[in-house]
Amino acid sequence: MYAIIGTWKMCYDGLTAGHALLAAGGTAADAVEKAITMVEDNPAYSSVGYGGLPARDGHVLLDAGWMDGETLRYGGIMAAENIRNPIRAARLLCGRETNCLLAGRGAEQFAVSAGLPLRDMRTESAMARWRETAQTFRPGDPLTAYRGHDTVCVLALDGAGRLIAGTSTSGLFMKEPGRVGDSPVVGSGFYCDGRYGAAAATGLGEDVMRGCLSYEVVSLMRRGATPQEACEEALRGLSSRKLALGEDAGSISLIALSPAGAFGAATTLDVFPFAAGSPEDVRLLAARQGDGRMDIRPATAEELEGEP
Amino acid sequence: MYAIIGTWKMCYDGLTAGHALLAAGGTAADAVEKAITMVEDNPAYSSVGYGGLPARDGHVLLDAGWMDGETLRYGGIMAAENIRNPIRAARLLCGRETNCLLAGRGAEQFAVSAGLPLRDMRTESAMARWRETAQTFRPGDPLTAYRGHDTVCVLALDGAGRLIAGTSTSGLFMKEPGRVGDSPVVGSGFYCDGRYGAAAATGLGEDVMRGCLSYEVVSLMRRGATPQEACEEALRGLSSRKLALGEDAGSISLIALSPAGAFGAATTLDVFPFAAGSPEDVRLLAARQGDGRMDIRPATAEELEGEP
Repeated sequence: MYAIIGTWKMCYDGLTAGHALLAAGGTAADAVEKAITMVEDNPAYSSVGYGGLPARDGHVLLDAGWMDGETLRYGGIMAAENIRNPIRAARLLCGRETNCLLAGRGAEQFAVSAGLPLRDMRTESAMARWRETAQTFRPGDPLTAYRGHDTVCVLALDGAGRLIAGTSTSGLFMKEPGRVGDSPVVGSGFYCDGRYGAAAATGLGEDVMRGCLSYEVVSLMRRGATPQEACEEALRGLSSRKLALGEDAGSISLIALSPAGAFGAATTLDVFPFAAGSPEDVRLLAARQGDGRMDIRPATAEELEGEP
Repeated sequence: MYAIIGTWKMCYDGLTAGHALLAAGGTAADAVEKAITMVEDNPAYSSVGYGGLPARDGHVLLDAGWMDGETLRYGGIMAAENIRNPIRAARLLCGRETNCLLAGRGAEQFAVSAGLPLRDMRTESAMARWRETAQTFRPGDPLTAYRGHDTVCVLALDGAGRLIAGTSTSGLFMKEPGRVGDSPVVGSGFYCDGRYGAAAATGLGEDVMRGCLSYEVVSLMRRGATPQEACEEALRGLSSRKLALGEDAGSISLIALSPAGAFGAATTLDVFPFAAGSPEDVRLLAARQGDGRMDIRPATAEELEGEP
């Protein structure tokens, strides 16, 4: 058995490449790295890696996380610049016992010392959009999650039964310098326990962290929930608390994968597209608000239209 | 009812001051801030705030976190320099909807814009110790948690029933530049849900994050565990996984506080001193390895000897 699941339409090509690695007997770690680096390298995706939209000072700040379900070890970089493939830095940091989570210049120095390629992550297109927005942006203006894409999260299970979780993002457009979202934060942006399952989150990181949602999903799977039940219950828990506080449900989507290769997805959005691969094929699916529970079916052309 | 609990002997004076605020009808938030700022301001404590031991490049990098159990909001700063009272920055960031977690220079810029005082956090004593250690330190040398002190964590409940969690540390001595531990990470270093309880962790942050321990403690309290049961079970869970992986149990200590004012503590160490205050008094206690469960009793003079 092997399986792979990733967030948003934008992960489809990478997921297909990761799926091919798994089909050829490759490891979950190589499949996750392959899938995410393809999204990072593609300048069309303005919420991840090269071409990501900058913070309000015009710098592109990268967050990424990695966790290995066999060792319960993780790695992460936060608010880091110039690292061509943040996910590769996070993967390498996962091999350490201390100094696994590095912020800012420290993360960049680590990438250099590890021989990872650097790159100016600012594209003309992203900087043009920043210049335009910066003309009218005021410090108190609200920040919102992207529409139709955001953090790329990939979970994979390989033939040897190893589970891996990875995440990568350039974070909210016009965020404050140094702002860190949920993506590099263990338990919020991702969590992976080889015994019980893996989970990851995309959307407004500040809200995801209030509920430690990825850990909560895996914790529910540990107590017997299916990945689908766990995603729905974890999201329902936080959403109901937010509603009780007079807030709206916000913009949060979750994915999960079990050690048996079963997957789940849930969202507070009208529709959340994602891709999932099993030994049969890789498919573009969508989670939608159903009647009391999530409706998971193939994404329609209409639902994918206009999305990067 | 009101209650306050904090990690290590070093929190005792601050906890006594926070306790006095609560006794006079003050808020849990003011009690936590008071208790932690007193530890931050004291140069005798080499693992927190002013006088904290530096990273291997000689810079003192500060981590702090704050969570409000009523709103489920939090704030945090990571790998930040020159902020005299990191806990005050974390508290202010908790009032925001986005940009709640700031790393490095961004955190410092926020402190300046918020009017918080800056300070060169390096003391002669800390820098002398750094110079001596740096002479022989090699990049691969293992880093270890402090002995007898570490992150200051304070949990408080006020007469209005509000629960607050706060943490502050300068992190591991000789850490890599940019290294972030568990203390500013929601769910790992701290978690606080007004309905179910608050928890915080001290010790080797890299290990604490593998188990999302503070969230796990509160999650167990949500399912009916007492704070003491929750601390023990959460720690046992991670320790048994570490042992199964061929590792030792590591250096981790936990504290918890329920919305009714009951507290708990657990440790992988031989002895973990902490302070706890109820309407009656403030006492220096210690958690020790007991016969299958933790032994919680007043700390003896011998157990406190030599500790900062």
